[in-house]
Amino acid sequence: MPQSVTTTTTRHTAGAAPETVEDHLAVEEPLEIRVQDQSVAITMRTPGHDEELAMGFLCTEGVLRSPDDVLDLDVCSAPDGSIGNIISVKLRDPTSVNLAHLSRNVFTSSSCGLCGKATIDAVCATHPAIPADQAFSATIAMLLKLPAALQAVQPTFQSTGGLHAAALFDETGILQVVREDVGRHNAVDKVLGRLLLDRRDPATLGLLVSGRIAFEIVQKALIARIGLVAGISAPTSLAVNLARESGQTLVGFLRDRRCNVYAGQVS
Amino acid sequence: MPQSVTTTTTRHTAGAAPETVEDHLAVEEPLEIRVQDQSVAITMRTPGHDEELAMGFLCTEGVLRSPDDVLDLDVCSAPDGSIGNIISVKLRDPTSVNLAHLSRNVFTSSSCGLCGKATIDAVCATHPAIPADQAFSATIAMLLKLPAALQAVQPTFQSTGGLHAAALFDETGILQVVREDVGRHNAVDKVLGRLLLDRRDPATLGLLVSGRIAFEIVQKALIARIGLVAGISAPTSLAVNLARESGQTLVGFLRDRRCNVYAGQVS
Repeated sequence: MPQSVTTTTTRHTAGAAPETVEDHLAVEEPLEIRVQDQSVAITMRTPGHDEELAMGFLCTEGVLRSPDDVLDLDVCSAPDGSIGNIISVKLRDPTSVNLAHLSRNVFTSSSCGLCGKATIDAVCATHPAIPADQAFSATIAMLLKLPAALQAVQPTFQSTGGLHAAALFDETGILQVVREDVGRHNAVDKVLGRLLLDRRDPATLGLLVSGRIAFEIVQKALIARIGLVAGISAPTSLAVNLARESGQTLVGFLRDRRCNVYAGQVS
Repeated sequence: MPQSVTTTTTRHTAGAAPETVEDHLAVEEPLEIRVQDQSVAITMRTPGHDEELAMGFLCTEGVLRSPDDVLDLDVCSAPDGSIGNIISVKLRDPTSVNLAHLSRNVFTSSSCGLCGKATIDAVCATHPAIPADQAFSATIAMLLKLPAALQAVQPTFQSTGGLHAAALFDETGILQVVREDVGRHNAVDKVLGRLLLDRRDPATLGLLVSGRIAFEIVQKALIARIGLVAGISAPTSLAVNLARESGQTLVGFLRDRRCNVYAGQVS
């Protein structure tokens, strides 16, 4: 059993007589991310792929753009030898980062008032739109195959029902990276961290998420230069508006051989 | 149409010929919560019930325990007259709160290492377990009726598919408060804020959430002194462990006339 799953007993009721059964649970543990020995984030995550999580988080928070920006990355071990819960990153050029600013979300930098429009403007001011000639080329036929492909490789979800998944897929619909986590942002950070570590071209990949698509998911994709975001469930208003401003393609309700295209073009 | 829903056009594909249709989206907008003019949180939320959201958030972050702790609460209006995105709280006794500490999650106060066990210990050290004689009295038959009751009163979800719901229910299974939000923690904060504002006895109510049950949901319920948490989907390992330590009852996979009882007793 992977470290992302644990077992417990539970009283299961499906009729008159409850029975005690063994059940699988998704593991949730805190992870602290430190930069230059300063704590910048604590997230509740599913242990595993923590280096990816830290790299994806720090990339989408604007702290780094390449593995070359990292001088050292240390994942501590717990006393029992299992994965520890503190990851420490040393940057090659620490003067380039405002750590005090890091614990705040990037959209707080908007000075022209706090609203959805200002939030989007603030993101787009620092992260230019995806140019049309760099758009990820997707077809409806390819997209409609993705949910089954994701389901086939979500082992922890199948045993626990408790995890979000994120995946990167190529233009033929092959899933290149799949990660699961109790936190939906963590799952996205993990696949984007993998992308960064492997130095792959983000223009050749789309992002698939197992649930709903909120603003921050589209924002993370934009910062990582991913041009297409697809989700099994609904997008929010702000996610749609950001995708339309940023040149990203946004596909929602991708299930049951259907989908809705909210932004961009799918041929 | 409520302010929590907006419309957009989308290209819908369910076969060979895509068509442009009108679709409803859950509204997502940032909300900044200020205490003594200092920004303590920015959350992406569905507008509406913002006073409840702020009260529930500040209660479950340990800043206040009663409406009497609030001297003034001001929800700004946007220039067009719609709900604004900044809520400002003035406390009766501001010296009682460490605002610098507020932007960090409470479990960071653990000094004995960062792990699930230490996280739970830190929560339980400041928030005693629910005494057995104050346990919320639930029956399986009552719990099994809750999913249909929640579905019946989730208007925004039904039109957008994009919202989490949280509800407080009494010992007969009647839903007393229901709130929806793009953020699952926000939906919980809103119902707990309502509880606080109405000065209701938390021992007479259980908390129902529409999705998965992570650690922070159980933690928020404990701090608000809610003794039973039920969810339509899976709990995480840390949520189960916290409930077992805190004397709370935890019910998961409450759907299809079934449920699992992970902690506590249900008769």
